[in-house]
Amino acid sequence: MKTTLKPYKSTDCDSYASGAYAAMELIAARPELVREVLIHPAFAEPENLRLLCVKKGIPAVCGEKPFLRLNQKENTYVLAVFQKREAILAPGEPHVVLVNPADMGNLGTVARTMAGFGFGELAVVTPAADVWHPKTVRASMGALFRVNVARFAGFEAYRAAFPAHKLFPFMPNGALELGRGRRPAEPFTLVFGNEATGLDARFSRIGTSVRIPQTELVDSLNLAVAAAIGMYAFSRG
Amino acid sequence: MKTTLKPYKSTDCDSYASGAYAAMELIAARPELVREVLIHPAFAEPENLRLLCVKKGIPAVCGEKPFLRLNQKENTYVLAVFQKREAILAPGEPHVVLVNPADMGNLGTVARTMAGFGFGELAVVTPAADVWHPKTVRASMGALFRVNVARFAGFEAYRAAFPAHKLFPFMPNGALELGRGRRPAEPFTLVFGNEATGLDARFSRIGTSVRIPQTELVDSLNLAVAAAIGMYAFSRG
Repeated sequence: MKTTLKPYKSTDCDSYASGAYAAMELIAARPELVREVLIHPAFAEPENLRLLCVKKGIPAVCGEKPFLRLNQKENTYVLAVFQKREAILAPGEPHVVLVNPADMGNLGTVARTMAGFGFGELAVVTPAADVWHPKTVRASMGALFRVNVARFAGFEAYRAAFPAHKLFPFMPNGALELGRGRRPAEPFTLVFGNEATGLDARFSRIGTSVRIPQTELVDSLNLAVAAAIGMYAFSRG
Repeated sequence: MKTTLKPYKSTDCDSYASGAYAAMELIAARPELVREVLIHPAFAEPENLRLLCVKKGIPAVCGEKPFLRLNQKENTYVLAVFQKREAILAPGEPHVVLVNPADMGNLGTVARTMAGFGFGELAVVTPAADVWHPKTVRASMGALFRVNVARFAGFEAYRAAFPAHKLFPFMPNGALELGRGRRPAEPFTLVFGNEATGLDARFSRIGTSVRIPQTELVDSLNLAVAAAIGMYAFSRG
């Protein structure tokens, strides 16, 4: 058991969920990943968290020391240390693919929205923001642990793994206006590009490209917003 | 004309848009608010920006000095200094009201989505994150200047100013499931609560409360995501 926690690095085997809410989400959803839970003596309501740890057989350590080296901007009184583990995506389910997402806030927010709309499988095409970074976990409000996340070294690698999925790349000049089609009966994948560059033109040939109707006043929508609108519309069928 | 720019404070009369994209959006949308445009000598493509400034009669100053005191995390090569100015919202148009939004990123993202979906009137109920903060402007990608923004000291003050608007507060237990009703013929207002606390129960009595259908796996959606889905659904009618 560690006594101090170092600031997170992307090459670490472990990461952590900070804040009681995200920690409890992690423990509830994926207890097998949790190594230990660190509780600051100033944390006001430790009892529910302690009981949950006991129930799941997870060590809960109280003390100030593990928090000292983290240099976090906000005060954090709970840290749940977890093993980073790649998932294998379920082939029969709807998928979301993010191609080269650069912002951890967007990545976490997309995971939160996925959990909210019943999308359980997320593919991240690298290079990409760190899926397991504490900031990503925080932006997801712990919902990252409700979603299977797998990384792929290129879109082609994703495509080869799931050849039966019907692909819907979201693009400004997409052929289909969102909300006009029906939710497909077969497994499908919603594909979203990088914040600054979107999806390049060749994506229009891999499936049915979709556009979100919008004014000329903006160049594009925020990535997490576009993904949310896509999921909302597809979850309604 | 200033030679150095101090880090922004909420009590300042002016703020600034950072980055060439947001600066050009500001100049295109609201040239009358712009005091001056500061261009760093390292900025690679100053010509379009300079021409736009000449066309709009805005002084463009080139130099390193104004950038020195800003202590920004990211390198910024363009700053457009603008006067903060409260708008008067158009009474016949659809409105968005954010009650006590706490996060500047969400505020900016909501403004960007509004511009994208043709919502031009934003009311912010204080206390709230700073609408004119450079971070808010940046999160909006400059779209903040495509939207009229007015602040109100309480929801009652907003209500008194626009008594004819039909109100749609977004709440987890809303009476109407989003997407089931029709876009109202009369002016309407979409109302969203604070990130952590949402809207309190009394909001269910002020109009037709709306719920976004979602799973039990999340407590709520991100504010900017919820607002985007509300606007998307209402803009489709």
